[in-house]
Amino acid sequence: MTIYSIGLDFGTNSCRALLVDLHTGEEKATEVFNYPSGEAGIITHPRDPHLARQNASDYLNGIEVTVRSILAQAQEQDPDFDPAYVVGLGVDTTGSSPMPIDGHGDPLSLQPRFKDNPAAYVWLWRDHTSFEEAAQITDLAARIRPEYLAQVGGTYSSEWFWSKILHCSRVAPEVFEAAATWVEICDWLPAVLTGNQQPDRIVRGICAAGHKAMFNPKWGGLPDEDFLRQLDPALAGLRPHLFSEAHPADHQAGGLSPEWAARLGLRVGIAVAVGAFDAHMGAVGAGVGIGSLVKIMGTSTCDIMVWPSGQPLADIPGVCGIVDGSVLPGYYGIEAGQSAVGDLFLWFVRNLAPDTLGTSLDEKFRALEELASQQGPGESGLMALDWNNGNRTILVDARLTGLLLGQTLHTKPHEIYRALIEATAFGALTIIERIEEFGVPIHEVVNCGGLAAKNAFLMQAYADITGRPMKITRSEQTPALGAAIFGAMAAGAFPSIRKAQECLCGIRKIYQPNPQHHAVYHDMYRLYRQLHDGFGTVSWNGSMANVMKELLTIRDQQCQPQEQA
Amino acid sequence: MTIYSIGLDFGTNSCRALLVDLHTGEEKATEVFNYPSGEAGIITHPRDPHLARQNASDYLNGIEVTVRSILAQAQEQDPDFDPAYVVGLGVDTTGSSPMPIDGHGDPLSLQPRFKDNPAAYVWLWRDHTSFEEAAQITDLAARIRPEYLAQVGGTYSSEWFWSKILHCSRVAPEVFEAAATWVEICDWLPAVLTGNQQPDRIVRGICAAGHKAMFNPKWGGLPDEDFLRQLDPALAGLRPHLFSEAHPADHQAGGLSPEWAARLGLRVGIAVAVGAFDAHMGAVGAGVGIGSLVKIMGTSTCDIMVWPSGQPLADIPGVCGIVDGSVLPGYYGIEAGQSAVGDLFLWFVRNLAPDTLGTSLDEKFRALEELASQQGPGESGLMALDWNNGNRTILVDARLTGLLLGQTLHTKPHEIYRALIEATAFGALTIIERIEEFGVPIHEVVNCGGLAAKNAFLMQAYADITGRPMKITRSEQTPALGAAIFGAMAAGAFPSIRKAQECLCGIRKIYQPNPQHHAVYHDMYRLYRQLHDGFGTVSWNGSMANVMKELLTIRDQQCQPQEQA
Repeated sequence: MTIYSIGLDFGTNSCRALLVDLHTGEEKATEVFNYPSGEAGIITHPRDPHLARQNASDYLNGIEVTVRSILAQAQEQDPDFDPAYVVGLGVDTTGSSPMPIDGHGDPLSLQPRFKDNPAAYVWLWRDHTSFEEAAQITDLAARIRPEYLAQVGGTYSSEWFWSKILHCSRVAPEVFEAAATWVEICDWLPAVLTGNQQPDRIVRGICAAGHKAMFNPKWGGLPDEDFLRQLDPALAGLRPHLFSEAHPADHQAGGLSPEWAARLGLRVGIAVAVGAFDAHMGAVGAGVGIGSLVKIMGTSTCDIMVWPSGQPLADIPGVCGIVDGSVLPGYYGIEAGQSAVGDLFLWFVRNLAPDTLGTSLDEKFRALEELASQQGPGESGLMALDWNNGNRTILVDARLTGLLLGQTLHTKPHEIYRALIEATAFGALTIIERIEEFGVPIHEVVNCGGLAAKNAFLMQAYADITGRPMKITRSEQTPALGAAIFGAMAAGAFPSIRKAQECLCGIRKIYQPNPQHHAVYHDMYRLYRQLHDGFGTVSWNGSMANVMKELLTIRDQQCQPQEQA
Repeated sequence: MTIYSIGLDFGTNSCRALLVDLHTGEEKATEVFNYPSGEAGIITHPRDPHLARQNASDYLNGIEVTVRSILAQAQEQDPDFDPAYVVGLGVDTTGSSPMPIDGHGDPLSLQPRFKDNPAAYVWLWRDHTSFEEAAQITDLAARIRPEYLAQVGGTYSSEWFWSKILHCSRVAPEVFEAAATWVEICDWLPAVLTGNQQPDRIVRGICAAGHKAMFNPKWGGLPDEDFLRQLDPALAGLRPHLFSEAHPADHQAGGLSPEWAARLGLRVGIAVAVGAFDAHMGAVGAGVGIGSLVKIMGTSTCDIMVWPSGQPLADIPGVCGIVDGSVLPGYYGIEAGQSAVGDLFLWFVRNLAPDTLGTSLDEKFRALEELASQQGPGESGLMALDWNNGNRTILVDARLTGLLLGQTLHTKPHEIYRALIEATAFGALTIIERIEEFGVPIHEVVNCGGLAAKNAFLMQAYADITGRPMKITRSEQTPALGAAIFGAMAAGAFPSIRKAQECLCGIRKIYQPNPQHHAVYHDMYRLYRQLHDGFGTVSWNGSMANVMKELLTIRDQQCQPQEQA
């Protein structure tokens, strides 16, 4: 007889359920649900590209559809399967994605008066409307609470909790005033599943609290009232309605409620783990341990490492967050990331890839990859910055934008596609260098997420550009697997997370760097850093006159044309 | 009874003939011939984007097809029309587009041994293979003959005569040695038409010689032997086989030969004018006079002004050339230009405009223009540099490349299209400012060429960005009209060019600048110049950190969103 755990992974455009056999590690069944609201699940605004919201009802519909499906699949494959053998359930989500809720714990967006008010919906991580508030928080903390900033990489972001709430209080005071509290969706969903969604009963996770809300037991939890009041009296007033404790994800948020047990066809009372972010649980599903950098590569990329809580660890400037217990209990979780990776490629293919390459997005992607892979490094003379959605690490600046240079009248779409892939890889290398420079050695890079699983050209470029082997996880759904691991831990099914990882995690493939390509990219990285530092930092000062010419020189060397008459 | 002149205009992709009534100014008939060789008339190389050659046979075929067609059209419209009333013929071409010819004056490319050797063909102005030779010429002249450089704007270009020939001597010595001489196609075509194509009988024009070959009577014609020897002994050896005189285009190159009179159906012996470049004759066809800046807007753009030969004129740094008599006899011709304008838009639409905008290029252009014109200045947050084909004026540097910045995940193709149009207009403003800064006031800007005639959105952007009215010529084929004027002058049909212009030239439309738009563009131009100087000059030194943020600030101000919750 075997037992199972379910991982629920809530991404930017869809959610996924995964059923894992805790004895064999087999992933028995999986199901995806695309959020029906907005544009691919995102509520946008035609005139304000910063705005990105989500409808919490999509999540609840998604849970029911996907869990029922995986249970049905498992029963179809195996007549002996019984949903009663599912012992635990874990939840990961995007974040920081906070939502205002009423006194019953229900989303304000369900109230008719707020139905058409985007401020009453989930403020998706990707929402950058609060960039001014983020700058205000950074400025104030730099002056009076530098320790708050050190924990979040030196700059507070518009992608995070307090910026978003403060912005809401200013542009939609009626929503702010109607909110009983604000809750990250990674905390709200376990609360719903366990019937603990009233504001004072929600169990909050340390992952979201520590990385995004500047929560730390060292200074008594959330930022103090005086700090919040100096930001805005509204925030000081909200503080007592938030939380004073936060827990790692191997803790229970509670037992599955009778209502949800009935909706899903599971046993009442099975363990539901405290929630955390997709990247953090994904890192656990990828087998993260000391010295591993786990890259979760999707629409955006999250980079996760751990470091023993007992050992000294420097503040790493520009790295989004360092929080005790946010990934594994007993370890600091170190989080970095890039704001647009898959999204950047999708933007390009959707908007700028001609139909001569194919009629569907998939065909265009395949054609671009095929053509791009026929070129060598530097042959196009192009260089891009991967900032179409700002720069999360190491610049922590949402008000940066994309850049492409080196175009000639001969530049082809696949060359630009390749330059965008390379730009994200140069950005990845910048993160690796920053982390190592501050004393955290990286012995291996483990990649997971959709891009890592599917895009061999991309992964080879990452290996060639970083000069490091790129390992690909066996599981193609490591966040859901990580969530299932925490579901199992909350149910007491393993003595330690390490044991669970040994049983459930593995490596499927390794991309080795090509030394010749790495040598060319080494030169190109210098130019990338020149553009990166030049456009991204106020301290840089110099000349840009070399950039286009050096790229042309590299191109001419790489193309090695026969002398042409 | 009336008389007529024919203008023959040889562009980059096609040639055109125009029949003009010299009494009424009516353009009786016109015909275009697309060059059949290569890609849209250009012989390219798959691995070397710098290479651009042309097949001289295309020109000769084009003359026959187009002239026969315009004569037939005129006869069809008017039974009284008689080709015998055609009194003159003028020729303009691209340039510097030199070609090696044999002792009979025939192109070396006609010889079977050179059939597959691109060096034996016409070296099109756009060919940039000789960028190293151009740098060598600039360096040497700066040291020992600064007066040569002053005439050509301070930097010798790979688009010009000596660079191309020197490059040929190095990469294709067999072609160089087989050449009896080299000739600009604007000189070769009149020579062919008048039966004077033997090397020692070709009449050379001052336009090409002065602007591209550093010819000036002040220093005895072409660069001296010692200078050429220091460049390369091969060039010194070629000098005696070139020329020692050069003439303005109101002179006769000769009378139409019996062979060509028969081929075309014209009278033997009618006047054929000395040839000149399309831009220079186009300026005359546009009515150029003191204080007029004529912009000939096509694949690339040429800017032409004149200044009385007797009055002092400063060397204008970065302006391609200042040559006495190159546009109008008795005036300095001042030439500037942008290396890619129409070509830049065509590159974008051909490669990066999705089929959702239309299936043909024309449909895509129309859709992009329609969408782009719905936006205001600065609303996209984008900024581009118009350097996909290098920068001719004011940087004179073929080894510069394109740049686009400000992209977000929401950026649409029409926004990029608009940014490219704006980039060319900012480039145009840079030229205007440079010319005025050195003491040549610009009282009016007169635009001609295909883009000026067809693209209202573009012309409005130029008016808004420069803050000056943009006048559009009545004729849509001012180079051919200018060539016809010189044909008429060579035939003695007018007492002066001014009289001919009064009879034949006019303004069809004026685009007035929108002051609100100009104010926004004024701010954006500062950022354009920062990028322009930063990437284009070695003397610039500073920070780029403001650029993306200021563009976002302008965007946010222009979009003026209602406060969004």
